[in-house]
Amino acid sequence: MKKIMLTGDRPTGKLHIGHYVGSIKNRVKLQDEYESIFIIADLHMLTTKNSKEDIIKSKQNARELVLGAIACGMNPEKVTFYLQSEIPEINEIYTLLQSLVTVPRLERLPSLKDMAKDADIEMPFALLGYPILQAADILCVKGNIVPIGKDNQAHIEITREIANRFNNKYTPIFPIPEPIIVENANEATLPGIDNNGKMSKSKNNAIFLNDTEEIIKKKIMQMPTDPNRTSANVPGNVEGNLVFLYHDIFNDNNEQVADLKNRYRLGTVGDVEVKEKLAIAVNKLLTPIRERYNKYNNDEYLDNLISEGNKKVRVKVQETLMEMKKVMGFYS
Amino acid sequence: MKKIMLTGDRPTGKLHIGHYVGSIKNRVKLQDEYESIFIIADLHMLTTKNSKEDIIKSKQNARELVLGAIACGMNPEKVTFYLQSEIPEINEIYTLLQSLVTVPRLERLPSLKDMAKDADIEMPFALLGYPILQAADILCVKGNIVPIGKDNQAHIEITREIANRFNNKYTPIFPIPEPIIVENANEATLPGIDNNGKMSKSKNNAIFLNDTEEIIKKKIMQMPTDPNRTSANVPGNVEGNLVFLYHDIFNDNNEQVADLKNRYRLGTVGDVEVKEKLAIAVNKLLTPIRERYNKYNNDEYLDNLISEGNKKVRVKVQETLMEMKKVMGFYS
Repeated sequence: MKKIMLTGDRPTGKLHIGHYVGSIKNRVKLQDEYESIFIIADLHMLTTKNSKEDIIKSKQNARELVLGAIACGMNPEKVTFYLQSEIPEINEIYTLLQSLVTVPRLERLPSLKDMAKDADIEMPFALLGYPILQAADILCVKGNIVPIGKDNQAHIEITREIANRFNNKYTPIFPIPEPIIVENANEATLPGIDNNGKMSKSKNNAIFLNDTEEIIKKKIMQMPTDPNRTSANVPGNVEGNLVFLYHDIFNDNNEQVADLKNRYRLGTVGDVEVKEKLAIAVNKLLTPIRERYNKYNNDEYLDNLISEGNKKVRVKVQETLMEMKKVMGFYS
Repeated sequence: MKKIMLTGDRPTGKLHIGHYVGSIKNRVKLQDEYESIFIIADLHMLTTKNSKEDIIKSKQNARELVLGAIACGMNPEKVTFYLQSEIPEINEIYTLLQSLVTVPRLERLPSLKDMAKDADIEMPFALLGYPILQAADILCVKGNIVPIGKDNQAHIEITREIANRFNNKYTPIFPIPEPIIVENANEATLPGIDNNGKMSKSKNNAIFLNDTEEIIKKKIMQMPTDPNRTSANVPGNVEGNLVFLYHDIFNDNNEQVADLKNRYRLGTVGDVEVKEKLAIAVNKLLTPIRERYNKYNNDEYLDNLISEGNKKVRVKVQETLMEMKKVMGFYS
């Protein structure tokens, strides 16, 4: 039997190429090796975004999340997608795990403080419990493998502690999940096309998975380069140059990238040529993604896929909950 | 329609006369005025007691809790008893409310720190969330009235804040619950018969609701009185004297109590007479309670009563959850 891999995201918006290189690409790579379960974590969204407006939007965002994953190559025949709020038993598991972690342990996680700061709120109880709800997400399907970015290592550590503590205190029923650390941490935080921090929809600096060839080219032609380079024959800096960072990530023609860098340093290539070649490379990557995006962009299909996933996952989660309550002594 | 009153306890052990005077007596008084719902809060027990042994015991303790309440005069035809862990939707409501309270707000409650200290543990996340789960308990049945001791006022205040916040943020669906403060706070913490702190089963200093007449007399005859009084003709202290504290609480013959106090101060009454009269008073109070205790002490009857209560309450809680999710935007 294949090991179970859990991945997923909060349904907070349309996907862009930052998501692709940061997480989805790796998930696609791993999907054949493991039984892949993908959580649409709408309850996690509540920890920092709980307005009615946010919640209403999350339905369409859930579709976007699944559509984006499929567009990037996740195989809907193989991957099980499910919506967290449609699996009520996750809440019970979450409650049952809450006595196994202390408040000081959770307060030592800097990521939670950062999230509260980013959202400009005082730490909600829900946010402090985020890593326990994550543990419930992983343990409810007895996940073995969790691909994560470096900044999430501390969270998976909490899941491992909880699983160990439960196993020792009651009966060993949980596998201890193993993290797979995503190698290139820079990619996980791809800068936006304006070089003003992380790519994000709200900053209006993103290249979306379904942007047309023309839009992509237009966006790339606007990207900043070396500000000290006033014309094509002035030697320029490749290091810290956003356009070359993108070339390194998106252009698989290594020879071309090396040649462009060389000529840029010598002052024998114009910004326009460098950007045009980047646009071609990004489009080469995005064309099949865009095609799949448009092919699967059907609310009924996506809702049905999620609903089937919910049913499948719920059976498993109900089994896990029953087993937990049994070994804890509830049905004695 | 009558207002809804929520009462209840954690299923942690056999009931004693401290429970009677501290909380049950008041609940019995109020049961005709309100629609009374009684929660057996086994999930709350997990916050400080989560061993398999504790959980296994909680089943019998749940029966004891209901039996004790009925023995003390709660009418099983009128009061709905239910077991918290059998209403899964409470966990969902608990999760949904968690984003409405901050960690610093909860950390300011001294009662939670005391509970952690008493249990000799570092604050578990579950314990910090106790007041939110209590809010879920109350709001899930749209409770209007909550009789509480003075030391729980801060908790009900959190429930009121959460209800207000939910109503303002989404749509007003929750009544703001009103506390009824139990008048005699001393009674809520009745000292045990050894005068060594609160009456409790574990300290072996309790008079149980089903103790026989003989056992009660024996227990009372062992109670400490004024230690400086070496014989019956030495004037004694009534103030701070445990036996007289009990007389004040349990002996409804005020004239007799006044006479005993007077003669005690003068040194014209023996400890034996004072205690014998106390035993008679306690037995007068406990005889009908003991009779009902023995009449209803039937596992099948009690399990069935709880199971019927679960069904009734669950329908209501499911309605509340559906309404909450709707106004929050989940089904839009």
